[in-house]
Amino acid sequence: MITVVLIGSGNVAYHLAHALNSSQKVNLIQRYARTDSHSSDFPVELPLTHDLEKLPIADVYLLAIKDDAIKMVSSRLDNLTGLVVHTSGTKSIEELQQKRKGVLYPVQSLSIDQKIEFRQVPLAIEANSPEDVFLLLKLGKALSDQVYELSSAEREKLHIAAVFANNFSNYMFSCAAEVCNENQIPFEILKPMILETGKKVQYMSPLDAQTGPARRGDQEVIDIHLCELQGEQQDMYRLISMAISKLYKHKQIQNGKKL
Amino acid sequence: MITVVLIGSGNVAYHLAHALNSSQKVNLIQRYARTDSHSSDFPVELPLTHDLEKLPIADVYLLAIKDDAIKMVSSRLDNLTGLVVHTSGTKSIEELQQKRKGVLYPVQSLSIDQKIEFRQVPLAIEANSPEDVFLLLKLGKALSDQVYELSSAEREKLHIAAVFANNFSNYMFSCAAEVCNENQIPFEILKPMILETGKKVQYMSPLDAQTGPARRGDQEVIDIHLCELQGEQQDMYRLISMAISKLYKHKQIQNGKKL
Repeated sequence: MITVVLIGSGNVAYHLAHALNSSQKVNLIQRYARTDSHSSDFPVELPLTHDLEKLPIADVYLLAIKDDAIKMVSSRLDNLTGLVVHTSGTKSIEELQQKRKGVLYPVQSLSIDQKIEFRQVPLAIEANSPEDVFLLLKLGKALSDQVYELSSAEREKLHIAAVFANNFSNYMFSCAAEVCNENQIPFEILKPMILETGKKVQYMSPLDAQTGPARRGDQEVIDIHLCELQGEQQDMYRLISMAISKLYKHKQIQNGKKL
Repeated sequence: MITVVLIGSGNVAYHLAHALNSSQKVNLIQRYARTDSHSSDFPVELPLTHDLEKLPIADVYLLAIKDDAIKMVSSRLDNLTGLVVHTSGTKSIEELQQKRKGVLYPVQSLSIDQKIEFRQVPLAIEANSPEDVFLLLKLGKALSDQVYELSSAEREKLHIAAVFANNFSNYMFSCAAEVCNENQIPFEILKPMILETGKKVQYMSPLDAQTGPARRGDQEVIDIHLCELQGEQQDMYRLISMAISKLYKHKQIQNGKKL
């Protein structure tokens, strides 16, 4: 049984509390929150403290707090013998002031109003001793089916990839919604296609899943679309289409096909 | 009962044949294909002809063929009294040479190796008389739960939106995969997040679903990421981040919030 103290009240703390409490291999013994706000909404009933200096002894202290607060909160966790772990995708393990430190980053965009199967959320872990890597691996596997050991440098690269995969793809949906709105076309009509786009890359590489005028090298359609767009949308359409065209032209040359 | 002749052998013809044949309100009486190739793979057994001049009498002739072939095939369909309909997202209704003409465009990226619930595929229809709009509406509703009447001009705008929603978002997944590959990080780790990105906008507007450094205005993280990227990926990261930052700054001003 791994004993855990959870620090935080936000989205990540919320989903982690649920997952920790559902595991037979974890004993979630206490939660720290700065204030009582949101406490009644919290999914798991467990002893709550507002005093960082009086945390009970535990194997792992999980900091599910804002990136900018990690350094400060960590500096206030004195005299702990357990492993102190943050859950940020962007911050280095070195943000933590403790000797025994680690990272457990859930690779998912988590919101409170969203039900999530936590066992399907990949976890990226890191620690600075083999024993603590082993402990985090054990904790990670108690919560999720996919646990990866990544260094802080690798996690930073993963975060860049996640910005493309999540933030930027969502922005493409925003642009689509804007084009629909401007032309009184219901955005509903694109929702099944959007869902399918995400589903397709579950079993197919995005390189193979690519379709559309830029992939086909259909400059006539690209030019028509560019004429209809303006400003940033036009710049974006041009830049992304050029990148796609170049990529697949290059692949055709590699494969010895006629252009 | 609407009698239909299907013309084509590709992805769209494949999925349409299946949907048409599953409907109690449709009688799919014949298929035309240029050659016998792929015929053994075709999902529906029905009379096949290679002769465009000898098509049987039907209510609707559905052209599920390449965009560039529509004009030519249509010009060879002489003396038909039924409604001739193409299934293209990009081509105008005017590509068809007949007096009675229409469009029935399935708004989904369809591949042969992919199972699809056709009733969930939105259909955009168009015809040039109220009677034919009514006929296509009836045919559309026999196949799908979502049928929209859109003009050729609206369909062109919808296609631009679909390029953003499907082609460009998929390219963002490609960029993410490339960043992963370059750093020996398994792309698997991002797949649940990608799926969730598509799921989220089913019940939430993409404007509200947006997260990430650009939405937060976190210039420090943006600058770190830009330093790590090169070439097109860097250009794209910069352009998209600027567009997101600008959009949400503008929204904050609109809402009277402090920047």
